[in-house]
Amino acid sequence: MAVYTEVADEDLAAFLARYDVGALLSFKGIAEGVENTNFLVHTETGSYILTLYERRVDPADLPFFLGLMEHLSEKGITCPLPLQDRDGETLGRLCGRPAALLTFIEGVWVRRPQVEHCRALGTSLAAMHKAAMDYSGERKNGLSVNDWRPIFAAVADRADTLQAGLAAEMEAELTFLEANWPGDLPQGVIHADLFPDNVFFIGSRLSGLIDFYFACRDSLAYDIAVCLNAWCFEADMSFNATKARAMLNAYAARRALTTAEFDALPLLARGAAMRFFVTRLYDWLNHPPGAFVRPKDPLEYAKRIRFHRSVRTATEYGLD
Amino acid sequence: MAVYTEVADEDLAAFLARYDVGALLSFKGIAEGVENTNFLVHTETGSYILTLYERRVDPADLPFFLGLMEHLSEKGITCPLPLQDRDGETLGRLCGRPAALLTFIEGVWVRRPQVEHCRALGTSLAAMHKAAMDYSGERKNGLSVNDWRPIFAAVADRADTLQAGLAAEMEAELTFLEANWPGDLPQGVIHADLFPDNVFFIGSRLSGLIDFYFACRDSLAYDIAVCLNAWCFEADMSFNATKARAMLNAYAARRALTTAEFDALPLLARGAAMRFFVTRLYDWLNHPPGAFVRPKDPLEYAKRIRFHRSVRTATEYGLD
Repeated sequence: MAVYTEVADEDLAAFLARYDVGALLSFKGIAEGVENTNFLVHTETGSYILTLYERRVDPADLPFFLGLMEHLSEKGITCPLPLQDRDGETLGRLCGRPAALLTFIEGVWVRRPQVEHCRALGTSLAAMHKAAMDYSGERKNGLSVNDWRPIFAAVADRADTLQAGLAAEMEAELTFLEANWPGDLPQGVIHADLFPDNVFFIGSRLSGLIDFYFACRDSLAYDIAVCLNAWCFEADMSFNATKARAMLNAYAARRALTTAEFDALPLLARGAAMRFFVTRLYDWLNHPPGAFVRPKDPLEYAKRIRFHRSVRTATEYGLD
Repeated sequence: MAVYTEVADEDLAAFLARYDVGALLSFKGIAEGVENTNFLVHTETGSYILTLYERRVDPADLPFFLGLMEHLSEKGITCPLPLQDRDGETLGRLCGRPAALLTFIEGVWVRRPQVEHCRALGTSLAAMHKAAMDYSGERKNGLSVNDWRPIFAAVADRADTLQAGLAAEMEAELTFLEANWPGDLPQGVIHADLFPDNVFFIGSRLSGLIDFYFACRDSLAYDIAVCLNAWCFEADMSFNATKARAMLNAYAARRALTTAEFDALPLLARGAAMRFFVTRLYDWLNHPPGAFVRPKDPLEYAKRIRFHRSVRTATEYGLD
């Protein structure tokens, strides 16, 4: 939630001159995106997002992300489309950083998703998975089952300051997940971070998906599990089976789950919750005092893990 | 440079329904405005700025500011125009704060103003002063000559940590300004904060003035003095007489200065520099460590004060 890099008007005008977008009318740094610096740019031809990729993004991954958005756009998935400059390049440089100019997706993210939003999400997620099937880019999930323990280990000695017994509980959970993580589910390109703030709606119509900067190749059903956690729990951490039913069955109507995926869903949901638990716990215990960005509560994800532990079959999530 | 108040999609949609602007398409918190929270809003009818007024703005002043922008807009000065809701009100409430929806002014602010920008500024400043002549609103300048000493006094004991002798020098300067401040110059409504980031250009054309939240009734020539400081010094703090000449003579071509104003300009410039010196010094010595907003260097304004002390007549600024 910050502008990390200041961009001068002259530098931006020179950057934009490489694209066929007309003259610059205005640009505003926008207070979204924890990883990158984003500007909303108006030119004579419309609205665009200018993204400067900051240190937390590996430049080597950018062709995968930008290529994916181009691929999905071609397949009719509404997402930011990186513009090509006059040399046909989507990746440029501005103020010493890798930078891209992307189409602006209208829409607002829904703070309190309702059943119809979850249904629309399920449909779109399946459509995205199918559209990405023939994308040739390769990127490994850098935050999968074997990446969680090192992050947890770095702060485990202080985990009990949040809740007594938390370190031992999550240590055991990690051991269980590592031993039982399924490796043979249908693979594909997943978004991996499809929280409500990355899904735009105009009224009740889903208008686009954004922020593909965690996208990677992994089990498709893992992406469903991320969404289950991100969309189907209430503010008090109670599970909303009506929302989950709407999301899961809308997804399955577009892409049928295999028996193995159906069976694995509770475990994937535990793992998807663990992925956000460990990164949130790390940020919680490592954020500088007085920092502008307030870290998110990791215990919200500990509660989700406990809930999923009690689930025996995906039928309990409402999947038909 | 921050979003102080989070606004939920539902709350904004309800707020916008009171205006004739069509449906909400998107809104982004923008990383500008140290005082207030601003969103760039797209609706079916165009782009708008939504401003939530935070604690540093006195709600009692809002009718003056909003009325001034309406008045100036009617007179052909391009500035944000507060929209009237269906009840004819320009001031509403959102998320517990006073809020207004304003037209969006296209343009970018110029990081390194050139002579032509200074000339355009002079013309626009005079036009604004003349357009505001018959504005009936009243607001006293809360940061005028008698307001500087209390701000300075709160941090004077630490001023020498910035530069040896600074406290004594500025103490004497304040005494001089208080004793010699002119009270009988032509009065009017001034912007009082017309720095480059409040003046938009499209190419070399001045496209609008923004941020009237320091506007007040005071000596018109004081506003010129603020601009002289803000626009006519280089990064190394050297005075650029070419820029000043362009700005001052463009202003005078639109509104001739009286002899008293001409004579007072060096003194007003010292005072205008003192106004920003004391507030910057206060912020510099009081900002929380690790705070996101980096305070601006007060010594830049100490240097301006010293420069103006050496000026005997406005002719040295380039005024014909």
